[in-house]
Amino acid sequence: MIKVGIVGGTGYTGVELLRLLALHPQVELAAITSRKEAGMRVADMFPNLRGHVDLAFSDPEQADLASCDVVFFATPNGIAMQQARELLAAGVRVIDLAADFRIKDLVVWSKWYGMEHACPELVEEAVYGLPEVNREQIKTARLIANPGCYPTAVQLGFLPLLAAGVADTSCLIADAKSGVSGAGRGASVRALFAESADSFAAYGASGHRHLPEISQGLAGFSGKNVNFTFVPHLTPLIRGIHATLYARVTHGVDIQALFEQRYQNEPFVDVMPAGSHPETRSVRGANTCRISWHRPQNGDMVVVLSVIDNLVKGAAGQAVQNMNIMFGFAESMGLELIGLLP
Amino acid sequence: MIKVGIVGGTGYTGVELLRLLALHPQVELAAITSRKEAGMRVADMFPNLRGHVDLAFSDPEQADLASCDVVFFATPNGIAMQQARELLAAGVRVIDLAADFRIKDLVVWSKWYGMEHACPELVEEAVYGLPEVNREQIKTARLIANPGCYPTAVQLGFLPLLAAGVADTSCLIADAKSGVSGAGRGASVRALFAESADSFAAYGASGHRHLPEISQGLAGFSGKNVNFTFVPHLTPLIRGIHATLYARVTHGVDIQALFEQRYQNEPFVDVMPAGSHPETRSVRGANTCRISWHRPQNGDMVVVLSVIDNLVKGAAGQAVQNMNIMFGFAESMGLELIGLLP
Amino acid sequence: MIKVGIVGGTGYTGVELLRLLALHPQVELAAITSRKEAGMRVADMFPNLRGHVDLAFSDPEQADLASCDVVFFATPNGIAMQQARELLAAGVRVIDLAADFRIKDLVVWSKWYGMEHACPELVEEAVYGLPEVNREQIKTARLIANPGCYPTAVQLGFLPLLAAGVADTSCLIADAKSGVSGAGRGASVRALFAESADSFAAYGASGHRHLPEISQGLAGFSGKNVNFTFVPHLTPLIRGIHATLYARVTHGVDIQALFEQRYQNEPFVDVMPAGSHPETRSVRGANTCRISWHRPQNGDMVVVLSVIDNLVKGAAGQAVQNMNIMFGFAESMGLELIGLLP
Amino acid sequence: MIKVGIVGGTGYTGVELLRLLALHPQVELAAITSRKEAGMRVADMFPNLRGHVDLAFSDPEQADLASCDVVFFATPNGIAMQQARELLAAGVRVIDLAADFRIKDLVVWSKWYGMEHACPELVEEAVYGLPEVNREQIKTARLIANPGCYPTAVQLGFLPLLAAGVADTSCLIADAKSGVSGAGRGASVRALFAESADSFAAYGASGHRHLPEISQGLAGFSGKNVNFTFVPHLTPLIRGIHATLYARVTHGVDIQALFEQRYQNEPFVDVMPAGSHPETRSVRGANTCRISWHRPQNGDMVVVLSVIDNLVKGAAGQAVQNMNIMFGFAESMGLELIGLLP
Repeated sequence: MIKVGIVGGTGYTGVELLRLLALHPQVELAAITSRKEAGMRVADMFPNLRGHVDLAFSDPEQADLASCDVVFFATPNGIAMQQARELLAAGVRVIDLAADFRIKDLVVWSKWYGMEHACPELVEEAVYGLPEVNREQIKTARLIANPGCYPTAVQLGFLPLLAAGVADTSCLIADAKSGVSGAGRGASVRALFAESADSFAAYGASGHRHLPEISQGLAGFSGKNVNFTFVPHLTPLIRGIHATLYARVTHGVDIQALFEQRYQNEPFVDVMPAGSHPETRSVRGANTCRISWHRPQNGDMVVVLSVIDNLVKGAAGQAVQNMNIMFGFAESMGLELIGLLP
Repeated sequence: MIKVGIVGGTGYTGVELLRLLALHPQVELAAITSRKEAGMRVADMFPNLRGHVDLAFSDPEQADLASCDVVFFATPNGIAMQQARELLAAGVRVIDLAADFRIKDLVVWSKWYGMEHACPELVEEAVYGLPEVNREQIKTARLIANPGCYPTAVQLGFLPLLAAGVADTSCLIADAKSGVSGAGRGASVRALFAESADSFAAYGASGHRHLPEISQGLAGFSGKNVNFTFVPHLTPLIRGIHATLYARVTHGVDIQALFEQRYQNEPFVDVMPAGSHPETRSVRGANTCRISWHRPQNGDMVVVLSVIDNLVKGAAGQAVQNMNIMFGFAESMGLELIGLLP
Repeated sequence: MIKVGIVGGTGYTGVELLRLLALHPQVELAAITSRKEAGMRVADMFPNLRGHVDLAFSDPEQADLASCDVVFFATPNGIAMQQARELLAAGVRVIDLAADFRIKDLVVWSKWYGMEHACPELVEEAVYGLPEVNREQIKTARLIANPGCYPTAVQLGFLPLLAAGVADTSCLIADAKSGVSGAGRGASVRALFAESADSFAAYGASGHRHLPEISQGLAGFSGKNVNFTFVPHLTPLIRGIHATLYARVTHGVDIQALFEQRYQNEPFVDVMPAGSHPETRSVRGANTCRISWHRPQNGDMVVVLSVIDNLVKGAAGQAVQNMNIMFGFAESMGLELIGLLP
Repeated sequence: MIKVGIVGGTGYTGVELLRLLALHPQVELAAITSRKEAGMRVADMFPNLRGHVDLAFSDPEQADLASCDVVFFATPNGIAMQQARELLAAGVRVIDLAADFRIKDLVVWSKWYGMEHACPELVEEAVYGLPEVNREQIKTARLIANPGCYPTAVQLGFLPLLAAGVADTSCLIADAKSGVSGAGRGASVRALFAESADSFAAYGASGHRHLPEISQGLAGFSGKNVNFTFVPHLTPLIRGIHATLYARVTHGVDIQALFEQRYQNEPFVDVMPAGSHPETRSVRGANTCRISWHRPQNGDMVVVLSVIDNLVKGAAGQAVQNMNIMFGFAESMGLELIGLLP
C-alpha cells in the first residue's frame, strides 16, 4: 500500500485519476487538493464516485502531501514546477500530468508555454513517462513528465517506423482528432455542447503546443531532426483521440511484422490485424493504444491509425501505469479495463 | 470457479455480459453461441474485448451448454422458453435477459408478446430477478427472469412509496427516457445515427411491452392493482435510462428517510441527498440505480428521479448480480464499477 | 420595409433573429448592439452569417435605436425593462424575448426573478405574444412579451383541452425536455459538451421560472386556477423542446377533432394524425409547433406530445411572427422554413 | 415554372431535394417515385415536409417522368444509367446524384463500382456538375453527373493551388471526415446511433470509390496525373464534411490572393480570412463551401481546410444549383440558405 496525493483534482484528469485509483489494490488515497473547492466532498462534485471515494478536497496549504509516497499534479501548466522541488526533497515522487517537464529545450518550452521555467534543473532530471520507450528510466525516476494526449497517440503510431529507419523523415504528417474533454472542465464558450456538438473543425493548424513535444520524441526515435506537420481537430466525442499519420517508406519492409515485434511485450499497445480501422470507442475508458496501418494502392505512402482515450492512456491511465512501474507493482494493476462499447 | 455459457452473444446485452464476466474472478467463460456468426472470434466483432476474450462464437447445436453451471440467454424474446427446460433438466441454472419468464399472467404475456408460451410451468417457477425485492428467492432459484431496463428503473423508484402505502395508486405515471442502445444492435432505420441523433421523441405512448411487467411489480409492492401510465421516449444517449415518476402522497411522511431506510443495505441503489438531480452519466457502465426525489412547491405531488445504465443494472449487470447471489459469491463481485464521467 | 434594431445580439436568440431577419423581405437590419463586442463584425462571431449580414456590433449608447420601427431585446432578464419606456416614448415598438413583461403579477415576478420591476405600468400594457391566443391584441400592441420556450410548447399543448373545459385542472403535469442551447451561449461548466453529451438529467424539479408563466397561461385558458407540476430536463440536443403533458379528461370528447378545430387556421401549429409521435428534428430550424396526443389503454388519461425548436417557435421565430402581425405583413413572411431533417 | 421529377426519393438526398425544391419559386414538383413506398405520402415518411409537400410516392412504372423538364436521380449507383437514355430521348434533362456518369474512364468505373456500364456513350456526353469548374458546359448540358460529397470538398480546396501550378503534385493528401448521413438512410449496423455516436474511426483507408473521381478532377486542374492519397473517416455528425488537405508549395505565392481571386465571383464558395478554421456547422443546411488555409511554421507545407454540408453542396444543393444554371434561373434561386448555427 502506498499513500497517494493529487494536487488539483477538480478537472477531468483529476476525476479520472480518482476513478482509477479508488479501485487500485495498492493505493490509499491520502489527499486531494483544490484551493477553490476546499471542504467540498469529492463525490458531491463527481457523483459517479459516490460510494467509492469518501475524501473531501483539502486546501493545498494544509494537505500533508509530504507524507505521501507519490503526488500526481492534475493542474494547469506552470503549477507543478513551483512545488516539485520541495516534494522531491521530502522524498515524495512526483508525476506531472501537465507539460512542465516534458520539453528538454527550455527556450522552446518558454516560447510555447509563455513563461519562464521555475526549476530548470528538474527538467533535465525528469523522465518522459512513455513506458513503451522509457520503461527502465521510469523505474527509478523521482519525477515523471507524463506525456500529452496527442503526443501519446502520435508517437506510438510513428515509433516502429522511425526506430527502424524505414520512413522518410522529411515529411511526417499527423492529422489528429480529439474529443472535447481534451479542452478540460473549465467554462468556455467554445467547448459548450451547443457549440461543439454536430460540428467539426480544425484548430491551432498554424501551431499547437503539442507540436514541439511530438517533434522532440520523433527526433529521438529516428536519431535526427524530422520535418513534422501537426493539425489537431475537435470532434464531437466526449473522450477519444484518433491520429491519422502519413509517412513515406523508403525501404521494402514488412510493416505488420515491424509493428507486432515492436509492441509484442507491451500490455497497453494493441496492433490490430492488417486492414483494420480502430475505433476510439474500443478504448473508451481503457488504457489501451490500438493501432493499425494501411498502404493505399500499394504505394510508398503508409497511413497509420492510432487511437487512445485521451483521459486514460492519454493522461490518468498512463500516469497510473508510470506509478505502477515506479513502485514495482504489476504494470497493469488497477488498469485491467475493457473499453465501454457500445 | 463456475463455468458460464451465453446464448446469443452478438447483441449489446451479450457484449456487455462479456465485458463484465471477462474480469469476474470466479467465472470461466465456457461458450458463447451465435448461429449466424459461428466460428468468428468474439473480439473480431467487438474489438474492445481484444486481449480479454479469446473465445469464438460457437454453433448453438454444438456448444456444450449442458456442462455449464449457468447459462445466460441474451437472445430475442421467445428463444429461452424453447431451451430452458432441457438445460434445467441437466442441472444448469438459467438466467434469461429477455422477457420470456417475466410476466406471471400468461394471457397478458401472450397479448403483449404475440406468441403462445412454450413452457408455462416454468413461468410459475421462475423468480423475477430484482434482488432488492426477491433476494431470498434468487438464492435458490433455478431460473431467473432478469427484469427489463425500464421496469428496473421504474420499480426501484416507486418501491419505497408503494411498500409504505403512502402513495395514491389510482394515478401513477412514469415518464421514461432511454438511450438508443435499448433498441438493440439489429440494423434498423429508426436507430440510425442520422435518425436519432439531435432529436427527441416519445414512442409506444399508447402501449409498450414493459407496461404489464411494471404494473405487475407495482401491484405486488402495494398489494393491490394500480392505475399506471407509462410513456417511453428515445433520447440521443448511447446508454442510460432516466425515469421521472409522478405520484401523490396521501399521508404525511419523511420521504428521504423512507428511501434511505428501504435501500440502506442495498449495494447497488444509491439514494442521493434531498434536492439532487441524478445524471445518467453518473452510472454509465456501472451497476448502480441512483435515485432522488422532489416535492414541488411542497404540494402532495412527489417526483422521483431514477437513473440506471440500461445495459448494466438494466440488463447484464443485474444478471451478473443475480448470478452472484445464486452461487453464493459476494453480491458485488465483478461489479465494482465506477460510472464513466465524463 | 421597416427598420429593425436588436439589443444584445451575441447570444443564441440574437444570432437566430439575424438568421431569420437577414432573409426577411420587409426588414432592413439597422443596428445590433453589444457593449462587450462593439466594433466586431457580426459575421466574425457567427460565420454562418458571412455573406448575409454586413453589420458590426455597435455600442448600445451610440446605436440609433430610436429611429427604428421595432427593437428586439435578446438580452438577459432585467435589461428590457430599463430601456423600453424610452423607446416606446420615441414611437418604437418593442419585442422583449426575455421575461421582463411576461408575468402580470409583479409579486410573483419579483419572487422568481429576484429583482424589483423597473416599470410596472408597462407590465400591464404589454401583450403576451402567443399569437394563437392573443393575435388581435398583438396587432396593435406597442410592447410584446415574447413567451418563453417551455411555456410555448406546454401552453399550445394544453390549450385545446383547457379552453374546452374537458380536463381535470386539479392535476396537470408537464414533463419537458430541452436541448442545451436553451441554456444560452454563456460559458458554463454545466453546458459543456463533456458534461451534457451522452447524459440526461432533470433540473429545477423543485421550481423553475417558467412555472409561474405557464400557470398564468393555463389559468387564463381554463378560467380558473390550475394545479400544475412542471419538471424540466436537459437532453443532449442542440435545439428542440419536447413537452409530454398529462391530463385526465372529465368528459367524453373527440380529442382529435378538438385539436384540429382549435388550430385549423394556425399557420404554425401542426396537429398530427392520431397515434403519431412528433420528433423534435421535424421542427429543427422551423417555426412550427407539432402536436399529437395519446390515450393509453383508452383510459381517462390523455398524453399530449408537443415539440418546438426552442430558438425558433420558442424564441426568435415567434418574435418575428409577432413582428409580422404588428406591422401587417403576411404572418408567415420570412418564416416559411422547413425543418432540417436529417 | 418547370416540372420536376425525382426518382428514388426515400433517401437523404431525396428528402433534401424536396426541402429545397418545395420552396423554389420556379419549380413545380410533378412526381417522386419509390417502388417500395408507392402510395405513401411523402410527408408521412418525412414529417418536416408536412404542410410543404403534398405529393405521394408513385410507382416508377406509372410516373409520367417523360413530361418533366428535368428529372433528378436520387438513387443507388447503377439505376440512372438504366433510365437516362429514354428520358433524354424524350427531351427531359437529367441530373444524376449517384456516380453513374462521374468517371470518364469506363475501365476505372467498372473496377470501383463492380458492374458493367449500361450506356457508355452517355458517360462521354455527361457534364461533371461542379459549377465552379464547368459552368459553361452545364448551361447546355442534357445530362449532369452531380459530384460526390467528398469530391466536392476536396476538389474545391485543391483547385486554386493546382490550377495555378504552385503545388507539388507528387504528394497530395486529403484527410476527410464525414457525418453519418453520408452513409445513407438504409438500415445498417455500422450507422446505428449506438455504433457511431461518441466514436471516431477511419474507413476505406486502403481504397474508397471517391478516390478515382477526385484523382480525375485533380489531374484535370493540374494538367497531369497526380499522386493522391485519400483517407475518409466517420465522425459523429449528422451532416457535414471537413476535408483537411496537405500539399507542398513549390513556388513563392500569395495563397490568400490566389484563393480569393479564383473564387471571387462564386456565390457558393467562401474564402475565409487567413488563419481561420471553418466549422462544418457554419454550412449546416446551406449550399456553401467554406475554405481557409494555413502554412504551419511558415514552411512549404500548405494545409487547406474545406467544409461543406454533404447533403447540400455535396449533393442536393449542388444539384439544384446545376438545375438553375441549366434553365437560366438565377444561380442562387432557392438556395439562399443560412447555415443553422447553433
